[in-house]
Amino acid sequence: MKEYAFGVDVGGTSIKMGFFRIDGTLLESWEIETNTGNNGNRILPEIAEAICKKIKASGIQRQEVEGIGIGVPGPVDESGIVNGCVNLGWGKVDVSKELCRMTEGIPVRVGNDANLAALGEAWMGAGQSCRNMVMVTLGTGVGGGIIAEGRIINGYHGAGGEIGHLTVDDHETELCNCGKKGCLEQYASAGGIVSLARKELAESSEDSALRGMDEITAKIVFDEAQNGDALAQKAVEKACDKLGAALANISAVADPQMIVIGGGVSKAGKFLLDLVHEAFLKKCFHASASTAFSLAKLGNDAGIYGGVRLLL
Amino acid sequence: MKEYAFGVDVGGTSIKMGFFRIDGTLLESWEIETNTGNNGNRILPEIAEAICKKIKASGIQRQEVEGIGIGVPGPVDESGIVNGCVNLGWGKVDVSKELCRMTEGIPVRVGNDANLAALGEAWMGAGQSCRNMVMVTLGTGVGGGIIAEGRIINGYHGAGGEIGHLTVDDHETELCNCGKKGCLEQYASAGGIVSLARKELAESSEDSALRGMDEITAKIVFDEAQNGDALAQKAVEKACDKLGAALANISAVADPQMIVIGGGVSKAGKFLLDLVHEAFLKKCFHASASTAFSLAKLGNDAGIYGGVRLLL
Repeated sequence: MKEYAFGVDVGGTSIKMGFFRIDGTLLESWEIETNTGNNGNRILPEIAEAICKKIKASGIQRQEVEGIGIGVPGPVDESGIVNGCVNLGWGKVDVSKELCRMTEGIPVRVGNDANLAALGEAWMGAGQSCRNMVMVTLGTGVGGGIIAEGRIINGYHGAGGEIGHLTVDDHETELCNCGKKGCLEQYASAGGIVSLARKELAESSEDSALRGMDEITAKIVFDEAQNGDALAQKAVEKACDKLGAALANISAVADPQMIVIGGGVSKAGKFLLDLVHEAFLKKCFHASASTAFSLAKLGNDAGIYGGVRLLL
Repeated sequence: MKEYAFGVDVGGTSIKMGFFRIDGTLLESWEIETNTGNNGNRILPEIAEAICKKIKASGIQRQEVEGIGIGVPGPVDESGIVNGCVNLGWGKVDVSKELCRMTEGIPVRVGNDANLAALGEAWMGAGQSCRNMVMVTLGTGVGGGIIAEGRIINGYHGAGGEIGHLTVDDHETELCNCGKKGCLEQYASAGGIVSLARKELAESSEDSALRGMDEITAKIVFDEAQNGDALAQKAVEKACDKLGAALANISAVADPQMIVIGGGVSKAGKFLLDLVHEAFLKKCFHASASTAFSLAKLGNDAGIYGGVRLLL
């Protein structure tokens, strides 16, 4: 093992970069903008440039770098090929091969961003020492990563841990972005929570702090629920019930030691965690009843940690 | 690697034993009765005796045996301890340690029986060469095994692949044996299919070949459905819809290359397989739509093959 490594987390608006010692010490992190012009074909050259610049500025040798571990917002197949990242404008891209060439030979490993965040949390975050862990990320979408026996379940088509698209409601009439109906993402994403609150508002004339607000966000719904607003509480409970039920089903498949909740929505903290845990206990198989629940600890850095972990 | 191995599959009424060459050639298989008296404390000694006798009769040396791989009908934790097998009368049993001692030092590895059946099918059965495979076993209960990157997902509490206990119906009022409501097992097990048919009979006055029968079995329901009996078809479709939906959710977690259906109920063959596949396609995440479906190929031998695979 060489002494240094880079972790990269490619998002739709910015790219998070981390310069690490191989033992997991984050020496420096920074962000660059995601250049989505020209079908995103400047993204990899700009990452390569940033890394080469950092190597030079740090006074280390290219030969001291173990590799680059990079997470992308799309499915990665068994052979490491990225099969389409809508947010980046990418079709099929061989990220490992291209980024390796652009950095003049630094080895590259690539993974799905949500999977790498899970791997990062299992390595240096909430799930330290857990060989079996599930992470769910609640943000614009609902993503996830399943760690079984210390390794990511990537899946044959790169769709392992796509837990935002578990069906949790057979009676849903509205469509999810994916084209199905009743996906977890329709209830437990930031937008899903807002839409549950809007439905409650439309379906009752109950008094609520949310009524008449121009803009409702997931944060506002959680804040008002914690303030005792009954209607906001109903929306939050529905979201947590769906998430708890989905996690119970995931546990009947992967049976983790710990479930970690991250992403922007998880800033609602213990209030969210306790409600999800309670809903989980109502639906889980008895053998999994002692599964631990935790909030994520690495925040937006989880992905860059996971990238480095992928190299080890 | 030594030349020979034993695979053992412990059931509630009989114990299947297999004498193998390490390359997966089954040289001989036989069964002994499961002695469940005295809290099942004669089971391991009788297995040890049968194996030692076979070694002697075959003229091979104990030193030529790589090991014994044994499947048990209950959860096996991370350290290989069996945590209760109701059907055997067992509480906590350290099967590896005890059986190794009883065979004077042959190494023993232990796994859950449904998981080992999946491993067997992935090794020498329907899923040959699949590193990502899900097997579901439809019998008295509904069991399963998840193979990710060539390895069983055993889970932290030994509940990996407990797919009979995925919740597939939130509105169920009857209890599953496990104490929950709406488990897959309540619809897709042999008894579940019969109970769906009985409900159809009770809820309508529709003419049906099943009406007035003294004893209805899952086989009869499938046979009549294939004969065109509309009521039997409704029951079969409901069971297959639930199973397909559960498999779609499992695919959003583990994303297998192939789903294998085994167990007594799978004798309904292609008729069953096609209905389940159709239901799966209605509910699966688009990336998993090309997942292959197959009937199991090893029948009751899957578990002994899986036992040997566990040793490799």
